[in-house]
Amino acid sequence: MSPFTSNRARSAGARGERRLITEIRRWLGDASPASPFGIGDDCAVIPPTRRHQLVTTDPVIHGRHFDDRVPARAVGAKLLKRNLSDIAAMGGRPVAAVISLALAPETSVVWLRDFYLGLADCSRRHDVKIVGGDITQGPKGFFGAFLTLHGESTGRLITRTGARAGDHIFVTGRLGGSLQGHHYQFSPRLAEGAWLSGRPEVRAMMDVSDGLAKDLESLTPAGLVPALDPTTIPVSAAARQQARRSGRSPLRHALGDGEDYELLIVIRVRADLGRVQRDWQKRFPKVSLTRVGTFVRRGKLPADALNLTDYRGYEHLR
Amino acid sequence: MSPFTSNRARSAGARGERRLITEIRRWLGDASPASPFGIGDDCAVIPPTRRHQLVTTDPVIHGRHFDDRVPARAVGAKLLKRNLSDIAAMGGRPVAAVISLALAPETSVVWLRDFYLGLADCSRRHDVKIVGGDITQGPKGFFGAFLTLHGESTGRLITRTGARAGDHIFVTGRLGGSLQGHHYQFSPRLAEGAWLSGRPEVRAMMDVSDGLAKDLESLTPAGLVPALDPTTIPVSAAARQQARRSGRSPLRHALGDGEDYELLIVIRVRADLGRVQRDWQKRFPKVSLTRVGTFVRRGKLPADALNLTDYRGYEHLR
Repeated sequence: MSPFTSNRARSAGARGERRLITEIRRWLGDASPASPFGIGDDCAVIPPTRRHQLVTTDPVIHGRHFDDRVPARAVGAKLLKRNLSDIAAMGGRPVAAVISLALAPETSVVWLRDFYLGLADCSRRHDVKIVGGDITQGPKGFFGAFLTLHGESTGRLITRTGARAGDHIFVTGRLGGSLQGHHYQFSPRLAEGAWLSGRPEVRAMMDVSDGLAKDLESLTPAGLVPALDPTTIPVSAAARQQARRSGRSPLRHALGDGEDYELLIVIRVRADLGRVQRDWQKRFPKVSLTRVGTFVRRGKLPADALNLTDYRGYEHLR
Repeated sequence: MSPFTSNRARSAGARGERRLITEIRRWLGDASPASPFGIGDDCAVIPPTRRHQLVTTDPVIHGRHFDDRVPARAVGAKLLKRNLSDIAAMGGRPVAAVISLALAPETSVVWLRDFYLGLADCSRRHDVKIVGGDITQGPKGFFGAFLTLHGESTGRLITRTGARAGDHIFVTGRLGGSLQGHHYQFSPRLAEGAWLSGRPEVRAMMDVSDGLAKDLESLTPAGLVPALDPTTIPVSAAARQQARRSGRSPLRHALGDGEDYELLIVIRVRADLGRVQRDWQKRFPKVSLTRVGTFVRRGKLPADALNLTDYRGYEHLR
């Protein structure tokens, strides 16, 4: 369904800002607490915390992150889930979000309602409060929702830095072909991220959003290169399906499609991998955790390792 | 200067996301701390706080909040200042910001550099750290920057609620005609807001962004109405200038233009107003603080008070 309507009476522009905000509060229901802790004052208020605060921001824009085939409810959920995945990647717990909307006056109120219902549903599931936001008119044909999510650490803060020579590279789930539906149907790896942040074996972590090949660069310290074993990459069924259409290899899709929203994990060289895997399977029996390679010194790449310079991930600006 | 260029080589699209982020970090300089406290990880990290946290979000969009006549540096500063004004309105102190950019590939890198230099300069002046963000491609001709600002309370948290019958209505500075330049040349009232939040006489507060007439509604509890004395409204020189062009009255511009970014303050009925004024003038000799009216019970509006239903503020969606 398109976010836009040619029926002026059913458009956000005809509704006006004040009435729209009243309706948004109704759509959000208990996902949005009472002011000043929620919508309605100059700022939203979040109670004090003794933990490190985490902040991340990601949008959904029509034509970029979703099209008319994605249900409005799923768009609202995707907006939050994209940000939840970033909190998961640092082992954090989500707390509260604000949303800045830029929308064309012809945005459909019915579509917007479903968008907010999907967002509210996802917020409740993850115990996130929608505490504030802004609505601004955008140009004709434009719908963008820009969410900033606040969280806090649950214990140790896992960043992208810290990998050393010999460390193991792991990934959760299966990769590639996200355009087949995974890009909005995924589950952010919050429980997994929090669990991993409590394991002393974990040295660094991030989420896979632009594709494994490109994202790995951010985990790779100067002087090292990732040596990936092509036979171990967990290629998704969707990547195989996508490959049949594109004529490219399933592996290429797994490495470069992006929007996997899986966790990419660095585990220290001397860790007891068997024990990590057993504990993982006991805690997350339905999610795979796969060792895909290791970090080696530059110039020491084994002959049978993937040459990642052949693979390009998602480019945000063209 | 236009944010867009027809010279592909000088465009954000040609630069690509990775290089652009590297350049943005250089432009921001020490306004952006090292990762994980700044740009470069899945989330930004803000140290724990014992105070209530404040969060607000406001964008600048080309064609809505600025046009080609506004220098790029001033656009970057305006983006932060709009949000600082919200923190000021709750008596808070700003701490850190994240920015989500949606831009057309033809956005000029030179314009973007100046935008970030202006933002960085303003950040340093107010001791705000730019800790993270996102860049996404927007449609042709689109530039939007969506900032979320985090702050903390400096003492008492002043919200919009709490006004009672007989309470006095005050406003800082002078109002109207912001399109003449004030809309990006204003100084957010941070010191003033923090000082006011320390005064027991202050019952409620907000900033004037949509015009006094419209914004006052948010401060008015059920059963009351604001009784404004038209002779006391601090009409700015810009409002008079604007009135000469528009043919409407300067008062109308003062009440409805919006983007004043002044503070609107409710002071309790029994306060010693003379003392408040004397203390204010000692602390802020260059900024006026004007009593413009009082809250009265519905149906008790004096005959010589302004009928605010005749005045409309800024409407965000048309």
